[in-house]
Amino acid sequence: MNILLASTSTLYGGNYLEYIKTEIEQLFQGIDEILFIPFARPGGISHEDYTAKAAEFFAQLNIKVRGLHEFAEKAEAINQAKGYFTGGGNTFLLVKTLHEENLMHFLKDNVESGKPYLGSSAGSNIGGINMKTTNDMPIVYPPSFSCMGLVPFNINPHYLDPSPDLKHNGETRETRILEFLTQNDLKVVGLREGNWIRRIGDRITTEGTEQTRIFEQGREPYEVEPGSTP
Amino acid sequence: MNILLASTSTLYGGNYLEYIKTEIEQLFQGIDEILFIPFARPGGISHEDYTAKAAEFFAQLNIKVRGLHEFAEKAEAINQAKGYFTGGGNTFLLVKTLHEENLMHFLKDNVESGKPYLGSSAGSNIGGINMKTTNDMPIVYPPSFSCMGLVPFNINPHYLDPSPDLKHNGETRETRILEFLTQNDLKVVGLREGNWIRRIGDRITTEGTEQTRIFEQGREPYEVEPGSTP
Repeated sequence: MNILLASTSTLYGGNYLEYIKTEIEQLFQGIDEILFIPFARPGGISHEDYTAKAAEFFAQLNIKVRGLHEFAEKAEAINQAKGYFTGGGNTFLLVKTLHEENLMHFLKDNVESGKPYLGSSAGSNIGGINMKTTNDMPIVYPPSFSCMGLVPFNINPHYLDPSPDLKHNGETRETRILEFLTQNDLKVVGLREGNWIRRIGDRITTEGTEQTRIFEQGREPYEVEPGSTP
Repeated sequence: MNILLASTSTLYGGNYLEYIKTEIEQLFQGIDEILFIPFARPGGISHEDYTAKAAEFFAQLNIKVRGLHEFAEKAEAINQAKGYFTGGGNTFLLVKTLHEENLMHFLKDNVESGKPYLGSSAGSNIGGINMKTTNDMPIVYPPSFSCMGLVPFNINPHYLDPSPDLKHNGETRETRILEFLTQNDLKVVGLREGNWIRRIGDRITTEGTEQTRIFEQGREPYEVEPGSTP
């Protein structure tokens, strides 16, 4: 496999996918067109507008972008594509659409056959075993929370350390993930912004500027350095 | 109806349910025993421990607390109870348990018949039309997101204003609720900590120390004062 699952598309003060441009170039080396999966629709923007945003970035790399929504035969479009990018937004909306249109397993099969896959945020969540560690609001009801399992764990994108200054009684991110572990025996990779997961063949590493926080049942949460296998 | 749906159980630096003690006394006036619904299990604590925590608070009001988990015949326990308190925790776990055990509609029917109901956080979420505006992590898959609809809108507990200092690219609460409105035509009441919704008969008001932020399709979000009907 050849995949890159990023915590976020955009760093604070930066431009869309800018911080990870070199890695994206390497991921899609030799490929002149990719299929964009716009279903997460951040802020409810249209599939067209979201695809245009992705296309604008990829134009810099001389890679053409087609949106999956443009195709009447979507499974066929997935099978014909040379590489994939699933953008962020709302994971519930993304997973609902992929399941209802019966597309999740076509995407999985093609990525498992070696075609490059880029995900950011919700697009990275669906690379995990299931979407039960998303941060998103459940604005729609998906027929299942299952995802592609391109890596043998779950991902929490935009992982955020507790703020000691916040006088607010909502749960911290760590509390939420520990709650997940009371109900599921599955490793969770807390991916801070600026970090990503890279899989090349069987080798899986966490990359980027930050340490990555790992959560497992029966063990204190721990940090791994960039370049480690989580 | 006679219901109180609180944003949070505990204010920053305060004790459990302390800030709302007078209102709870009034809600359960003349009642010496209530049924506690512990299924949201904050932090994964046991039903027993969670019920003990609620019982400790209600002992101050001379109200006895029984946990719903203690009963073999749970629907019967709901029908026999004089009043209800559903504590916070994980809304997905709460809603999954209530639906799987086929209890949601028994609770709804009894509260609609006039028995007092107290909810906090996840326990307030289930007073809304559905749980699609919870902040919680989807750690389990409920058979449905439908809730009791004790009020004709959805609730976002622990409503949090955007922090201008946060250098983080996760969605703000307002962004999430506006995403919800792109998929659902349903009013959302953003309930800040320190606030609650009170329903007495047909009269519904927002109460507490803070303004309440209301979200509707096709309209800018707006604030209402304590004592207003949202």
